[in-house]
Amino acid sequence: MKIALDGMGGDYAPSEVIRGAVEATQEIEDLELIVTGRESEIKQELMKYPGAKRISVLHTEDVITMYDHPAEALRKKKNSSLYKAIELVRDGEAAGIVSAGNSGAQMAISLFVLGRLPGVTRPGIGVCVWMKDSLGLIIDTGANTEITPREYLIFALLGRDYLRTILGREVKIGLLNIGAEPEKGSKLVQKGYAILSENFEEFIGNVEGNEVLSGKADVIVTDGFAGNVLLKSMEGTAERFLEILKDSINKNFKTKMGGLLLSSTLKEAFKKLDYEEYGGSPLLGVNGISIISHGRSRHRAIKNSLKVCYNISKEGVIDKFKEHLSDERFRH
Amino acid sequence: MKIALDGMGGDYAPSEVIRGAVEATQEIEDLELIVTGRESEIKQELMKYPGAKRISVLHTEDVITMYDHPAEALRKKKNSSLYKAIELVRDGEAAGIVSAGNSGAQMAISLFVLGRLPGVTRPGIGVCVWMKDSLGLIIDTGANTEITPREYLIFALLGRDYLRTILGREVKIGLLNIGAEPEKGSKLVQKGYAILSENFEEFIGNVEGNEVLSGKADVIVTDGFAGNVLLKSMEGTAERFLEILKDSINKNFKTKMGGLLLSSTLKEAFKKLDYEEYGGSPLLGVNGISIISHGRSRHRAIKNSLKVCYNISKEGVIDKFKEHLSDERFRH
Repeated sequence: MKIALDGMGGDYAPSEVIRGAVEATQEIEDLELIVTGRESEIKQELMKYPGAKRISVLHTEDVITMYDHPAEALRKKKNSSLYKAIELVRDGEAAGIVSAGNSGAQMAISLFVLGRLPGVTRPGIGVCVWMKDSLGLIIDTGANTEITPREYLIFALLGRDYLRTILGREVKIGLLNIGAEPEKGSKLVQKGYAILSENFEEFIGNVEGNEVLSGKADVIVTDGFAGNVLLKSMEGTAERFLEILKDSINKNFKTKMGGLLLSSTLKEAFKKLDYEEYGGSPLLGVNGISIISHGRSRHRAIKNSLKVCYNISKEGVIDKFKEHLSDERFRH
Repeated sequence: MKIALDGMGGDYAPSEVIRGAVEATQEIEDLELIVTGRESEIKQELMKYPGAKRISVLHTEDVITMYDHPAEALRKKKNSSLYKAIELVRDGEAAGIVSAGNSGAQMAISLFVLGRLPGVTRPGIGVCVWMKDSLGLIIDTGANTEITPREYLIFALLGRDYLRTILGREVKIGLLNIGAEPEKGSKLVQKGYAILSENFEEFIGNVEGNEVLSGKADVIVTDGFAGNVLLKSMEGTAERFLEILKDSINKNFKTKMGGLLLSSTLKEAFKKLDYEEYGGSPLLGVNGISIISHGRSRHRAIKNSLKVCYNISKEGVIDKFKEHLSDERFRH
């Protein structure tokens, strides 16, 4: 199984990216990686891991930075590490692509180079978060600020198939809304409720912002605006909470002692809330596997993204998408 | 200064409501309360506080429950504690109304009985939250799932004047969005950006979900759908965090010791995140002060809502609204 990895993408590229790549190949025996980017820089990093195996380098001169506008990058940076990595997927030379680079550019290039799955008009970004006792998925988290009711249907299908593949069990689908009853929310969301309840046995109804982490539903379906607000506010609240916790621990000798006694247990527990643990954010609806890893990804995040990319490729998630999208309910 | 209090509203009415009323009158010397509701029940509670002063009771037979549909309550329960309390404001017998009852009904009845301020088409619900170092306000948090660009303008004005009155200082206004640049978000939000930057010196630009608690802006302007998602997801994340913290502390003897050493400091620190501390949620844009206290309000939340209601009445916030709304920029 070959996977393409953007060697120049992310705040800590190429060093952390290469370290993550080496670790992934150590953990998965039949994983081969094609790392795209400046050969000299990447080889220099690779030299730090003399035992590294099954990692080849595809030299590309250009790099897409965080400051490049996605549409510009798409037009002008065809010889960049990201662009070439995505082309490897299109050409069947890699089963999927992972990048921690410019996510807007990754979206635009994936869409252009890989194309959409039949029946999909707007791909969505799924983000895995740890809910009460299990992993869950929120889709869309920012690709589409304006959608039609049909997108709820497609996001639900893609999210369900993806998460089901990862968890190996049936999953429940919920609609992000501002109340429990079907008539809550905007007209668009009300239509979403109707279309989801008609088409999915797994649909359990509305899920409010405070219920997302309760595990009431595994897949949370929403538009990219509300989904982005949801995800980022969870992130911001968690950060604020940790700050308060740290400040409290640092207050005096007594609290410092308390912090010392709790620290390892707390670290372990809060790790679960860190969505970077869960293998990046899949761009769902394009004809290929394209995983967006956080710009701040360190080696562990890269490794986890590669592992998820490997697993879902192995399970043939794209074929499942195609099979289910071919059902007449999901056709235009 | 007289304020009307719905004696039957909330999960813990009338006992906690009356306790909160007594405490508020103890803390504010010239505060008089008119409590509406079933006289016998309310008087029975009042008997627990022999020294209680400046609390009169206006008997009403009916009660609006959490199960009453707002429109139904508006039509059929004109002799309810909530309805009568709001009428006291319309008739100039009370400077404002506080209720912990059915918030949908409070909104509908306030709108109908008090009417809108000139220039306001859709009142919004403001919620005060503790940001990094100071109180902030999010508006709208659920009254309007669909808005026009003009509502951003009105929400910003109302939120600014309200928070400025409470804090006694200038405040910064931010627009909830999914990125920093003016061209981010839906067309509606982009128009919101333009209209806010044209009309408010205090406008500092977009604020993302993870920045809300950073204190980058004091007033966060948004539509009722995104605002509700924002607020509830902050609530849900905080709850989940506290659960994890409790579970970690209860894990073993060592962690329990740690928890013991930290508990008072942590309780103090996390109290700040509890938005029930901050005097309820004002319905902004109606012609009168109508404060929605949480359904689960206990005496302290009721007391705080009454204090805020008193303070903003004293500062003449409704007159400020009217004065600023009369500026031609805010006319239709």
